[in-house]
Amino acid sequence: MAVNLNTPGPLMPIPGVRIGSAAAAVKHTDRLDLAVFTFDEGTDIGGAYTQSHFAAAPVLLARARNKHALAWVINSGNANAATGEPGRRDADEVCDTVAGLLQIGPSQVQPFSTGVIGERLPVERINIAVEKCCQTLSEDGWLDAAQAIMTTDTVPKGLSRQAEIDGGLVTVTGIAKGSGMIKPNMATMLAYMATDAKVAPGVAQMLIDDALSVSFNRITVDGDTSTNDCFMLACTSRAENTTIKDRSNPAYAGLRALVSEVAGELAQALVRDGEGATKFVTLKVTGGATPDDSLAVAYTVAESPLVKTALFAGDANWGRFCMAIGRAPIKALDTTGVQLWLDDVQVAKDGLMAQSYNEDAGAAVLAQDEFTVRIDLGRGDAEETIWTTDLSYDYVRINAEYRT
Amino acid sequence: MAVNLNTPGPLMPIPGVRIGSAAAAVKHTDRLDLAVFTFDEGTDIGGAYTQSHFAAAPVLLARARNKHALAWVINSGNANAATGEPGRRDADEVCDTVAGLLQIGPSQVQPFSTGVIGERLPVERINIAVEKCCQTLSEDGWLDAAQAIMTTDTVPKGLSRQAEIDGGLVTVTGIAKGSGMIKPNMATMLAYMATDAKVAPGVAQMLIDDALSVSFNRITVDGDTSTNDCFMLACTSRAENTTIKDRSNPAYAGLRALVSEVAGELAQALVRDGEGATKFVTLKVTGGATPDDSLAVAYTVAESPLVKTALFAGDANWGRFCMAIGRAPIKALDTTGVQLWLDDVQVAKDGLMAQSYNEDAGAAVLAQDEFTVRIDLGRGDAEETIWTTDLSYDYVRINAEYRT
Repeated sequence: MAVNLNTPGPLMPIPGVRIGSAAAAVKHTDRLDLAVFTFDEGTDIGGAYTQSHFAAAPVLLARARNKHALAWVINSGNANAATGEPGRRDADEVCDTVAGLLQIGPSQVQPFSTGVIGERLPVERINIAVEKCCQTLSEDGWLDAAQAIMTTDTVPKGLSRQAEIDGGLVTVTGIAKGSGMIKPNMATMLAYMATDAKVAPGVAQMLIDDALSVSFNRITVDGDTSTNDCFMLACTSRAENTTIKDRSNPAYAGLRALVSEVAGELAQALVRDGEGATKFVTLKVTGGATPDDSLAVAYTVAESPLVKTALFAGDANWGRFCMAIGRAPIKALDTTGVQLWLDDVQVAKDGLMAQSYNEDAGAAVLAQDEFTVRIDLGRGDAEETIWTTDLSYDYVRINAEYRT
Repeated sequence: MAVNLNTPGPLMPIPGVRIGSAAAAVKHTDRLDLAVFTFDEGTDIGGAYTQSHFAAAPVLLARARNKHALAWVINSGNANAATGEPGRRDADEVCDTVAGLLQIGPSQVQPFSTGVIGERLPVERINIAVEKCCQTLSEDGWLDAAQAIMTTDTVPKGLSRQAEIDGGLVTVTGIAKGSGMIKPNMATMLAYMATDAKVAPGVAQMLIDDALSVSFNRITVDGDTSTNDCFMLACTSRAENTTIKDRSNPAYAGLRALVSEVAGELAQALVRDGEGATKFVTLKVTGGATPDDSLAVAYTVAESPLVKTALFAGDANWGRFCMAIGRAPIKALDTTGVQLWLDDVQVAKDGLMAQSYNEDAGAAVLAQDEFTVRIDLGRGDAEETIWTTDLSYDYVRINAEYRT
């Protein structure tokens, strides 16, 4: 059960982006599991790709084809990872099919896959479904695509936002899927966003780079990172704003904020729908000497199995947080400067349990399905926020039963 | 249920070491929870202490009193951690009581605590029990002490080994407790060992340093590290071997091997009794460019929740191992050099699922309660072995119910 996450409301079309989805029976029959995105000529593409040593065949191809793509083809149910040269040929073959149907070059198609690792892609079934996708391309295809890319997700994830930017109304729409292996440097996550903002070539990549560090690179469910993560953005330049050329353009900040907002909400949606999640936890670390300092503490706490089981149990106990902060890989922490709050309830003051702390008040915070854990390290100004979940029986059940 | 672990057989006395245990009702009534060790004058002490930023008050005192101690006082049920200056005074007071009864200096007593974090020690009850311990000191007190130091352990852990070393029969006896927060740089683990080997001052510390890297620093249950870990060794020099002065002495290797064997088996016993463990897994990484290389891969795989749940479920799937190896923090891994075996069954060859791999054979290995996962990185000669467990429903249950 996802934590406070509903099926998305209407997803706004982005002029210049058309999407078709179909059922290819990659792993399950009778469900959408394939999506094709196409873009008008002149669309600027940016992407961020998994840093796994075992980056899957489609990721290697997609990465090589960054910036100049005119189509994306995405399947769920099979990751085409750890499949070596045959896997690469499979991905190529699917791209060739898409390219043939759309009359573009194969190197203008970026392939993406998610699902079981180590098995060959059912290329024949996918190619048949690709044809169906290309026959049903529509600007209104976002929600179907959100469903087509799901694996263990329980809810499709999507979002649109609009803002006036420098003379034009700009729309950003995005979809994403989780839901285990959610961790910095991305996750088993695929996210596809598009905007009609008018930008110069290369700006899509800047937006990706800037949005990552406040969205998909700030979430963790279990600390695992997948072989297939990708976060993509297409800018179609169909809006009326004055062209944004680079970061020095004053309007860039507005567009970055809009893209980051959509990416951030999608990232949080992945956490809300994390495997077995019963809590949605915002973990804010302030007072770090450097951003790395604050992030290291945030991730150590967020990924500690003992903290996560305490969050699941609603055990508002300073001991486990203290243990996790204590083993964070940072230099010589003076623990007498450490404070900890659960929402507004101060649990630890100057490294000790706060005199004022009343455990019932702490337990009341943890009894909610959403709350903030705030840690102040008292040794600087660096502040970082990440989002995470608890560790429940269901996490074990899902992962003991599901074949990755 | 511990994996293939029984109550220890007879623990051999070490001449020069006397031990008393008692029930102090620190947390639970009617169980041994306090132990006092005393050593003859001239005993050489070595120790390794937690690296947690939040090292507990007793650890700070014990570390400062390394080498010249003549007594150890250990309680379970309360960690006296994150208790600040008052906690330090509590530990001091207990040491003072021990020192008064044994007529030694307070700085010759090393205190140790394990259990709940962030609560004050019940000093009055402990002091009464200290007196009982000191009245019942005996060379045969090892097994009682093994029981007194337990927290969530289900089985007391202890072991003795003997060998002829350079003209004398030398005995090593040790006890230890786990059983969550088991991770490199030690664990919520306390281990107390003694030997009658005749050594020069300082050799006990050399033995600790050398034994650590093949024992307590090579185990992980959940990646968490506690505030209270300590691994101690007392050398009483009562055996007949020629005095071992330092590492250059040929007999040192024999003593190191004996001490390492006891430490290694105790460390493995902690894993066997890890919280919720249903499998005991030896994880061997060969072919690393450096030892750090091999260790990084070993720990990333051992601590991956997705690998651990697959081990629990007996899912002999290359995908999860591949995912975990893929995110190991090592430089540019050429995945085409990676091999993986479950016992003798080759699962992956040259980075891909092995053609010969038959999943039934893999599942048969994982159906055992003990097996070896071997990974070869194919880029050097460095080899490291660590021991770990699976992640079960019971891990979540125990930690959702237990207050650390």
